[in-house]
Amino acid sequence: MYDQRSAAIQLAESQRHQTLADLKELVKIPSISTSQENYQDMLKAANWIAAYLSKIGMKNVQLLPTAGNPAVYGEAILDSSYPTVLIYGHYDVQPPDPLELWKSDPFDPVQDGDLLFGRGTSDMKGQILACIAAVDATLKTGGLKVNIKFIVEGEEEIGSPNLASAIRAHKDLLACDFVLNPDTGMVGENIPAITYGLRGLSYFEIKVTGPDHDLHSGLFGGIVHNPAQALAEVIAAMHDENGRVTLPGFYDDVRVLDEKERAELSRLPVSDDDFLRQTGAPALWGEKGFTPVERLGARPTLEVHGLYSGFIGEGQKTVLPSYAIAKISSRLVPNQDHEKVYQQLLAFLQEKMPPTVKWEAKKLSGGAPLLINPDQPATIAFAHALETAFQVKPVFKLEGGSVPVTTDLQEILGVQSILTGFGLPEDNIHSPNERLHLPTFYKGIDTIVHFLYNIG
Amino acid sequence: MYDQRSAAIQLAESQRHQTLADLKELVKIPSISTSQENYQDMLKAANWIAAYLSKIGMKNVQLLPTAGNPAVYGEAILDSSYPTVLIYGHYDVQPPDPLELWKSDPFDPVQDGDLLFGRGTSDMKGQILACIAAVDATLKTGGLKVNIKFIVEGEEEIGSPNLASAIRAHKDLLACDFVLNPDTGMVGENIPAITYGLRGLSYFEIKVTGPDHDLHSGLFGGIVHNPAQALAEVIAAMHDENGRVTLPGFYDDVRVLDEKERAELSRLPVSDDDFLRQTGAPALWGEKGFTPVERLGARPTLEVHGLYSGFIGEGQKTVLPSYAIAKISSRLVPNQDHEKVYQQLLAFLQEKMPPTVKWEAKKLSGGAPLLINPDQPATIAFAHALETAFQVKPVFKLEGGSVPVTTDLQEILGVQSILTGFGLPEDNIHSPNERLHLPTFYKGIDTIVHFLYNIG
Ligand SMILES: [Zn+2]
Ligand SMILES: [Zn+2]
Repeated sequence: MYDQRSAAIQLAESQRHQTLADLKELVKIPSISTSQENYQDMLKAANWIAAYLSKIGMKNVQLLPTAGNPAVYGEAILDSSYPTVLIYGHYDVQPPDPLELWKSDPFDPVQDGDLLFGRGTSDMKGQILACIAAVDATLKTGGLKVNIKFIVEGEEEIGSPNLASAIRAHKDLLACDFVLNPDTGMVGENIPAITYGLRGLSYFEIKVTGPDHDLHSGLFGGIVHNPAQALAEVIAAMHDENGRVTLPGFYDDVRVLDEKERAELSRLPVSDDDFLRQTGAPALWGEKGFTPVERLGARPTLEVHGLYSGFIGEGQKTVLPSYAIAKISSRLVPNQDHEKVYQQLLAFLQEKMPPTVKWEAKKLSGGAPLLINPDQPATIAFAHALETAFQVKPVFKLEGGSVPVTTDLQEILGVQSILTGFGLPEDNIHSPNERLHLPTFYKGIDTIVHFLYNIG
Repeated sequence: MYDQRSAAIQLAESQRHQTLADLKELVKIPSISTSQENYQDMLKAANWIAAYLSKIGMKNVQLLPTAGNPAVYGEAILDSSYPTVLIYGHYDVQPPDPLELWKSDPFDPVQDGDLLFGRGTSDMKGQILACIAAVDATLKTGGLKVNIKFIVEGEEEIGSPNLASAIRAHKDLLACDFVLNPDTGMVGENIPAITYGLRGLSYFEIKVTGPDHDLHSGLFGGIVHNPAQALAEVIAAMHDENGRVTLPGFYDDVRVLDEKERAELSRLPVSDDDFLRQTGAPALWGEKGFTPVERLGARPTLEVHGLYSGFIGEGQKTVLPSYAIAKISSRLVPNQDHEKVYQQLLAFLQEKMPPTVKWEAKKLSGGAPLLINPDQPATIAFAHALETAFQVKPVFKLEGGSVPVTTDLQEILGVQSILTGFGLPEDNIHSPNERLHLPTFYKGIDTIVHFLYNIG
């Protein structure tokens, strides 16, 4: 067994050059799921991955149709008595806007030393190819005691609206013992991580209307409540001076961090300076009484995503706008409920909105927070693989984002996910100049080779 | 003298039919100053007015070139010892959009009973022709003791960007003792008005920056100050619970309304219901301790014209935006200074902006508030003329908007303006189905005839 593992590692290493060339080819396909115009590119990317899975010997390769972009499926069933891992990925990418901030074409990858620049290199075409390269090397080398399935969807960046029904429709095909989802990242270079908790989300849109049409501020300014001002007043009231969210009952269901967990989280090698560097903010901010790492992983937030009112073009226009809109969401932690938080928002608005304006609010989406048991055997196997490849124990962390697919897979297939990945915080995912750190990418391939041999 | 006045009134009346026909001809020229495509129409309208002034015997008629559309000049100098009135007008009109809401072609005037429909009929081709018709009748009749000059510009609806330099370049030509500007309107049918105060403006743009690039709210929400939230907090702090602006020293220079003036303003026949109907707001709002009419005319305001941050498209995006922008202006009353108010804004931001965000502010424009002495002889002469023509005392009112040309004329020529006019609130100026109320239009001609004989 040790020989085969070693041979697979060597084979993967000898194939690195080709893997990188293949990744560049995939990155060149602008599979932007938010853009209707790119629908043909979505199909092109899906077919590219399907062909790639076939080429490395996966069987039963197919596109699973959905109401949106298809998902790609492929499998290597070695023995029905072996445990099965389902490797999840998404082939869609974020739009590249603002284009003018890119130093190179987002869809014509450029290598600069250890970095490969391009949209999707890190999130997550690179992660997908790391998995496929590792599976390729292990299948060629032999000796695995695990069955492998892939599902690579095309709508993650738009919230996976059709994934749950696709999983439900192909429940038997996708049956597995656990999921490997490499769509969350490392804590830093050479600090691999496994995410065991994710925040949920409750996303709202609020509209405040003052006058029933735009007015001239000269003719009417001073006699009606400006809806942009009214909205600002209400948003300002949503946090208190300690950075705490003021929705009534907001913290009632929040799981209390115990001292052991706080101690573990405090071991995460990220400093305030790291966060300042990553964000470019002039100072950190947040709920008093908690460290940034705790706030990110274990505390709920309320965030403004968008504001709009009146005239926002160049120059000036003295409009007294008829309405103002805000997009706001709350990141939720166990055991908050997204519908309950929406009701708290409505109660808050009911109380705070003055009679001088009209308002409406709607919930655009909701997702439950998630807490995964880090002691399951597959997770331990993966932790060992990370330690072997990186020569350092991985950290177990709570993450601020939501990965709705994790909840879907847990609910429909009854399996837990290993949330990990080989992206770095500096990778500029969802931003201009997205990049992949190639040495980490190669260690990622090694990790997955070790992981596959660690199982069974 | 009385005979000549009476004869001029009769002459004007006998010429009404022709005046109306001429007005229709002028309205047919689509002199839309916002539209580059209509440049030839601007010239056509300017030349039409120049020819019309020549036809009624004005001398030295000429187009004054500007960097944009020319202004039309003409004069009737009867005796150098007489006082001179400069009659101001603008031949440009608002664009007719939205076209589909017009019941008739905006540039093919249609008469329906007492109303003449068409773009510019009220604002202000009708007002210009009322003046010219009155001047025509009085010049033909004789006995005037006033010199008359006209300046009719072509860029009022785009903010008169080139008028000040044209006035400066033709300071001697335009020299006068006072200005008659019939571009503000009546309070209602048979309620003539003279506007004696206008608010000034100080217009700002504020930008608040948090992180130096857009972040993912899942990955970073809760550790940096959201700039949209920070902006909302600062905007919310710009008013106190009494609707007063909180910029430091904001009210220091505000002229105190005396009881006589408040009593006069309280006579204006506009109710809260009128304002509610005009605005469609669910309730009125504003600075406590002042009536809506006082707030509109005599109290400064601070108004949000535009808000922008992050994602404002359809659906949801969990961006933690890098920056947020607000367009804000303050309407100023005597004796506030727009630069001083900008400094107050900067002081306010300096104090209120937290160190967790960066910010910048700039002033986009400034205009002085204006208070015209209602006791000057020309104004009294005009008030008497209104009373004679309408058989009712005019109201003296403060207006919320700015009329920049008034300030330009005061600063460059050192003269005050009589702000008046014969448009009604129902005339739909700047809106579809603009119209002119012909009985009021004819009383307007009579008013100006009386006014010209009242002087000297
Ligand atoms: Zn991703
Ligand atoms: Zn006008």
